[in-house]
Amino acid sequence: YVGCMSSGLFVGQEHVGALMADYLAQTPIPATRVESACASGGVALRAGWMDVASGAHDIVLVGGVEKMTDVGGDDATYALATASDQEWEAFAGVTFPGLYAMMAVAHMDRYGTTSEQLAAVAVKNHANGHLNPRSQFPAKITVETVLNSVLVSDPLHILDCSPITDGAAAVILCPADRAKELSKNGAPVKIIGAGQASDTIAYHSRPDLTSIESTAKAAAQAYKMAGKKPEDMQLCEVHDCFTIAEIMVYEALGLVEKGKGGKAIEAGETALDGRIPVNPSGGLKSKGHAVGATGVAQAVEVVEQLRGECGDRQVKGAKLGLTQNMGGTGASSVVHILEVM
Amino acid sequence: YVGCMSSGLFVGQEHVGALMADYLAQTPIPATRVESACASGGVALRAGWMDVASGAHDIVLVGGVEKMTDVGGDDATYALATASDQEWEAFAGVTFPGLYAMMAVAHMDRYGTTSEQLAAVAVKNHANGHLNPRSQFPAKITVETVLNSVLVSDPLHILDCSPITDGAAAVILCPADRAKELSKNGAPVKIIGAGQASDTIAYHSRPDLTSIESTAKAAAQAYKMAGKKPEDMQLCEVHDCFTIAEIMVYEALGLVEKGKGGKAIEAGETALDGRIPVNPSGGLKSKGHAVGATGVAQAVEVVEQLRGECGDRQVKGAKLGLTQNMGGTGASSVVHILEVM
Repeated sequence: YVGCMSSGLFVGQEHVGALMADYLAQTPIPATRVESACASGGVALRAGWMDVASGAHDIVLVGGVEKMTDVGGDDATYALATASDQEWEAFAGVTFPGLYAMMAVAHMDRYGTTSEQLAAVAVKNHANGHLNPRSQFPAKITVETVLNSVLVSDPLHILDCSPITDGAAAVILCPADRAKELSKNGAPVKIIGAGQASDTIAYHSRPDLTSIESTAKAAAQAYKMAGKKPEDMQLCEVHDCFTIAEIMVYEALGLVEKGKGGKAIEAGETALDGRIPVNPSGGLKSKGHAVGATGVAQAVEVVEQLRGECGDRQVKGAKLGLTQNMGGTGASSVVHILEVM
Repeated sequence: YVGCMSSGLFVGQEHVGALMADYLAQTPIPATRVESACASGGVALRAGWMDVASGAHDIVLVGGVEKMTDVGGDDATYALATASDQEWEAFAGVTFPGLYAMMAVAHMDRYGTTSEQLAAVAVKNHANGHLNPRSQFPAKITVETVLNSVLVSDPLHILDCSPITDGAAAVILCPADRAKELSKNGAPVKIIGAGQASDTIAYHSRPDLTSIESTAKAAAQAYKMAGKKPEDMQLCEVHDCFTIAEIMVYEALGLVEKGKGGKAIEAGETALDGRIPVNPSGGLKSKGHAVGATGVAQAVEVVEQLRGECGDRQVKGAKLGLTQNMGGTGASSVVHILEVM
């Protein structure tokens, strides 16, 4: 399985499942592309998990990929906008910075979230990404740097936005009872919970503009399957495509109360040494956001964290972690909970 | 699950899983798009089947869709060409009529297949499609009509080619033990075999240019799972994107010996009243080829055939049927065997 959002628009290549099987010399193994906009990687992971669970295959390679820099910025912005409702959003000219800016305005209006709190998400994620050799933008930044950077769509500055990225990630799945035998390079990690949910594709159709309901519902499924609660999580890799997204995701995952996301980042609760470290990898913001790869890259980070392989950005003693990946303004969300075996 | 090949290029809309869930008023149910070029529908069916088999869900809606006529012919031809190897085929200017023309030339050269035999595929499928109220091009045609139609890519005339189509199809899956209770509108039909295989994405990379190996391998998996042989099949819906494709698929499915596909169509073996009726629906050629919908539409036709609901195009007494759907020049193939319960 390969998660990929828009290889047709980015590089003129659909059928990337077959392409991957071929270029990895894996033919005639079945190969399928899965797409749910920026949640494509997470949904590919879920498809691979179902494939193993169905008994159809024992060993499944799940990858995610996006090559976004072959086209110019306008074309990339257009390609990304196809994750929104083309007829009612994209066609009218709105792009993703605009949509997330509306989410930020709504959240600020209702809960008093501030631009400084948004900036603090970027500062934290760059601090973490600074410790990650895979980061696309590893530079440390300050709240002032963010607030003084170019305004893209008020109140979001360019440093509130994740970048355009080329990238890929992969994991290998197998039945739990074969994992120890097959994991020669580290402790096996088990997917103990999984959830996926949809929402209206258009942001304006939602009854509550300040919450990401698909994430709340996907997380509820995953927590239930895992028999765990939000407070059991030891680290989370979440979809910080924009700084406001990470704050809203804290709330959707139940890591903080509704409306308290801004205060949580301000208080350092989600820092690497905080109560619940979020995005130790640097997140989409610093590590990069090759959209189809992101959901798989989150799983790679959690696996390496649970194995204790993350060096300076290691969350100490982590045995349990969560990934949250979403598409569009949250029309698709997928959550996985992973535990080291 | 929704199979869709290139909604990004055709209509500027990725993320069609969420779009479908929203517009069908099914949120927050998980919704995922699956893509394997023109095999997207068949692969979506397979994803739904694995989802039910995994135990994750009991009721799964599998759809397929493509809206191909919003763009002009050149753009549609470009979008379709992204199913081939962009760097080594499409970028060099080759399009799908050209690729299948090469397949036809290779098959003619080795096995003596004739233009009249190719045309006979179109004549049969239009004769069947003439009896199908859902056909896009239901007109009956003759071998002479085909041979006198515009040459698109020698030896393929325009009537050797499936059309550009807008269309959609859907089926509902559930565990077999619940099927009787839930099938209020006809006998339930069981998926008793399934297979999928990949091949090199570029046609020129294959050791044998006269066969579709991914179909042969997918079919072998499906026959094995079903405990059936090619001669057990009572009807087949196959991927006749071009007339030569249907002939090569006869051979890949084992319905005829290698190299005997041309003679089989000439002898009427695959006609509605022949030994093994192929494409009673009219196939892609006459019914239409909305690429992402095709694999699901094949399953719809087989279900209706097995229920005896097909009127003038009914294959009498059919209890067992096969669908074969492929992407590109056969870089992806997916086969299902269905039996009425």
